[in-house]
Amino acid sequence: MLYTSEALESVIENLSRLPTIGRKTAQRIALWLLKQPREDAVALAKALVEMKEKIQYCSVCWNITESDPCPICASPKRDRSVACVVEEPSDVLAIEKTNDFFGLYHVLGGVINPLEGIGPDELKIKELLTRTENDELKEVILALNPSVEGEMTTLYLAKMLRPLGVKVTRIASGVPMGSALEFVDEATIARALEGRISV
Amino acid sequence: MLYTSEALESVIENLSRLPTIGRKTAQRIALWLLKQPREDAVALAKALVEMKEKIQYCSVCWNITESDPCPICASPKRDRSVACVVEEPSDVLAIEKTNDFFGLYHVLGGVINPLEGIGPDELKIKELLTRTENDELKEVILALNPSVEGEMTTLYLAKMLRPLGVKVTRIASGVPMGSALEFVDEATIARALEGRISV
Repeated sequence: MLYTSEALESVIENLSRLPTIGRKTAQRIALWLLKQPREDAVALAKALVEMKEKIQYCSVCWNITESDPCPICASPKRDRSVACVVEEPSDVLAIEKTNDFFGLYHVLGGVINPLEGIGPDELKIKELLTRTENDELKEVILALNPSVEGEMTTLYLAKMLRPLGVKVTRIASGVPMGSALEFVDEATIARALEGRISV
Repeated sequence: MLYTSEALESVIENLSRLPTIGRKTAQRIALWLLKQPREDAVALAKALVEMKEKIQYCSVCWNITESDPCPICASPKRDRSVACVVEEPSDVLAIEKTNDFFGLYHVLGGVINPLEGIGPDELKIKELLTRTENDELKEVILALNPSVEGEMTTLYLAKMLRPLGVKVTRIASGVPMGSALEFVDEATIARALEGRISV
């Protein structure tokens, strides 16, 4: 035990468990917090506990929310005929930031990954199918990440959704805006060519 | 307000105030914590509050501690004739890790920095001088960082300490172990030459 305080050691220990934070950063943050007014540390502690107490999952779209159904599902302004299927709540944030989509969402909670033992039953896929059957959905947009597992899940979902009589689409893959062809990998260029649209 | 939850927004806000954590990392950590068991977030919150409650400054060496005087100042095993002067509590940790120093410490709480309005009175310099006069100290080792401000503070402290009749030394600056001369900057090599010792 190198530290002169167990309380400090405990904070460093707890902080270094967080993603992106190693032991050195944890030590730096802990010592920094010691220099700040007591209220700062207390505010962070309170926010952490409140978050865990208040946040639940929306029973319709499985996004994180404080009220059920979530503000998006409950909003009369959203287009109820289209739902965008994403992996995680952070993807909802990313799409909402565009201010370009006004439909509903469906958060799967991950993608099918046999190597990690994640099959369709571990995700909110059954809920998506039930919702597609019962709700007034006309289109389901698949917006999973273009990883191997994301692609696999997209194909699986398309196969399951098509018989239900909804239009199933997926977001385009291609050259990112502001990028240059010479710096983009072959798979992306191939996908961009494949998904070409008339101008 | 992009988030569907104010509680989440509050955690992100509080986390992104910490050093080395930007808004994106804060969001990633908050969403990760949401997926973890409730106990994890509560443990972190509790550790933060406890740290602020339990930790105080040692009235002898001004290092952080849970008991006053701190375990180092109170230990009968430490050599009470030598004190190592450092900037911050993290420097005490760094030196303790070497297992090579068995004297006492004195934590200044920073260095003299006129641009940021930090003069000798903002640091624990008066306390160091009083301690040097009253205690059985025979040697004071100055171990401040070799920055411009650190150098300035070292010279200031040497000037103030010398009349008190103690031996005043400073840690060596030079080529770091495992490094190569060709990759070391000129100021470091100049300092290494200046501080050469006979072998």
